[in-house]
Amino acid sequence: MHQNSHSVVIIGYGGMGSYHAKLIKDNERVKVVGTYDIDSVRAEASTQDGYRAYPSLEAVLEDKTVESIVIATPNDSHKEIAVRAFASGKNVICEKPVTMNVSEFEEMTAAAEQAGKVLMVHQNRRWDEDFLIIKQMYDQKSIGDLFRIESRVHGANGIPGDWRHMEVHGGGMLLDWGVHLLDQALFMIDSKITSVSSRLSFILGDEVDDGFEATIQFENGISYLIEVGTTNFITLPRWYVKGTEGTGIIEDWSMTGRTVTRNREVEHVEPKPIQAGVGLTKTMAPPSEEATITGVLPEPFRQPSSFYDNFADVLDGKAEPIVKNDQVLRVLNLIEAIFEGGRTGETIRDFDQY
Amino acid sequence: MHQNSHSVVIIGYGGMGSYHAKLIKDNERVKVVGTYDIDSVRAEASTQDGYRAYPSLEAVLEDKTVESIVIATPNDSHKEIAVRAFASGKNVICEKPVTMNVSEFEEMTAAAEQAGKVLMVHQNRRWDEDFLIIKQMYDQKSIGDLFRIESRVHGANGIPGDWRHMEVHGGGMLLDWGVHLLDQALFMIDSKITSVSSRLSFILGDEVDDGFEATIQFENGISYLIEVGTTNFITLPRWYVKGTEGTGIIEDWSMTGRTVTRNREVEHVEPKPIQAGVGLTKTMAPPSEEATITGVLPEPFRQPSSFYDNFADVLDGKAEPIVKNDQVLRVLNLIEAIFEGGRTGETIRDFDQY
Repeated sequence: MHQNSHSVVIIGYGGMGSYHAKLIKDNERVKVVGTYDIDSVRAEASTQDGYRAYPSLEAVLEDKTVESIVIATPNDSHKEIAVRAFASGKNVICEKPVTMNVSEFEEMTAAAEQAGKVLMVHQNRRWDEDFLIIKQMYDQKSIGDLFRIESRVHGANGIPGDWRHMEVHGGGMLLDWGVHLLDQALFMIDSKITSVSSRLSFILGDEVDDGFEATIQFENGISYLIEVGTTNFITLPRWYVKGTEGTGIIEDWSMTGRTVTRNREVEHVEPKPIQAGVGLTKTMAPPSEEATITGVLPEPFRQPSSFYDNFADVLDGKAEPIVKNDQVLRVLNLIEAIFEGGRTGETIRDFDQY
Repeated sequence: MHQNSHSVVIIGYGGMGSYHAKLIKDNERVKVVGTYDIDSVRAEASTQDGYRAYPSLEAVLEDKTVESIVIATPNDSHKEIAVRAFASGKNVICEKPVTMNVSEFEEMTAAAEQAGKVLMVHQNRRWDEDFLIIKQMYDQKSIGDLFRIESRVHGANGIPGDWRHMEVHGGGMLLDWGVHLLDQALFMIDSKITSVSSRLSFILGDEVDDGFEATIQFENGISYLIEVGTTNFITLPRWYVKGTEGTGIIEDWSMTGRTVTRNREVEHVEPKPIQAGVGLTKTMAPPSEEATITGVLPEPFRQPSSFYDNFADVLDGKAEPIVKNDQVLRVLNLIEAIFEGGRTGETIRDFDQY
């Protein structure tokens, strides 16, 4: 198979579209042969970046030399573009959230199946090193069995001032960042969700959520908190995880972090009470220096290939997609449960498509 | 009024009982005249500390020179001791949690009222400096209106190996630390609770909870998270609070902390995307250096008097109790809702005795 054998056209050449172009530039088997954007300024940018700017979506879809498209447009337009692309015999890589809801996605996958074409959703944060370190801790039990996982992303900039703060375009933090963090959770934990409780935040006065928290309870006993905030001028750690032998933390994307575990070599000594505020506490006294071991974070889990290598392998019939459509569907279904729980304030059960 | 005019006997001379003796030693108006403990070792300790060891509870209650008692025994014995003390004409200071449930406390307050005696519960963490700093931030809106308060206490020692891990004695973290943190919340936020959702943790295999989390939603819009953990080898900050103008943090009882607020002097500049993991993010990019102001924590709110000065004032008819029994009742009622929510997994509503 020769190099750059797989041609793609990027639909929507904004922030994410041009980021895809950069990603694909590093890949030897996939090549960007053009873009299409409704905004003439972005079409001009594409030409300057060396990518042919198609005059219309029709022109892309009618071009028989184009094997696949990347959809990087606002969320409410994904489905229609994808369905038309499949009908024209194209494969589709679609930005996340793939659709606004489950039923749109079912329409999309049905169209892909009917056309016998590939649909892969760009859940790229399955490749984030911070996540892959936690996945390794989970898989290898390096601090014992994890029973509590807290995954937070905090910013202080509010919602970006584009379509991302409009409901009709599928804006809001649950669909934007939530879909990543939920996808990571379900990719890591192979167990059915028994319940989810959630709270959406509308502090900034936007029509969409400016943050949310969701506590997912899995059948295997794991409690998994996901929290996204855009009004956090001080950030809490990106990851905080508790295992039966200790605790792990990753502060941020710089991978600063550590583990602290029980020292099994030392006999348990009941801690001495400490003064805490105006009271005494034995329970909350820090363990003695010898009672714990501070360790470094493990090496991250390694995905078998990059997103675009995997895409090329799938087109070549050499691999299954790492991001599977039934997994994407399950995440969308969970998002609907989180929206419902946020609206009603109730714990949602018996919904998981595991 | 002469010094040390108010005599007390401490019932239960364990860790907390002897701590009360130290507290009272610093007070000019209250004096410990003796103790009673069922354990002869502790009676001996009392004598060595210079406090007469009464041979029985009856002996204390029959002693007409004793004005008040401090109850510092296991939680399941508080009610009976208090009711007998009121019947003998004593005032009562009682350790927290005052009783195991609402109905026991109603029995206790009815007995106090019938006897015309004072009952004050030792909710001493209303005097904790960390709490009083947050209360000041809440009252004075120093980082804008607070809309989210997170109050955490993390330890790694499990539950102390005494009666505190036995259900029959009222053990477990919700009754032990929870009662403090919930009391602080309801003392600070003057608003009705619309709902609470909770999760109790039983990681250590004890018959009582080794930690819990509760999210309290107040009618005035504030969401208040309370979390207690005893399997946390790394601790999250004691306080994390979000206001409409910024965020505040207190790391621990050493009062390390800061505020970060929006700089209103600087025009808003849309942040530039940063690389985070394998993706880009504009939303989660840190605000520019000039866009925020890092500040120090405010001076704490000052309670009008110490717990024991207030007790003496109440006995002298010169003040209302700072810890009021209807507040204590409300907290106990909230604890029952948290137990129920933990058991059922449901959000609990329409229970608050506000």
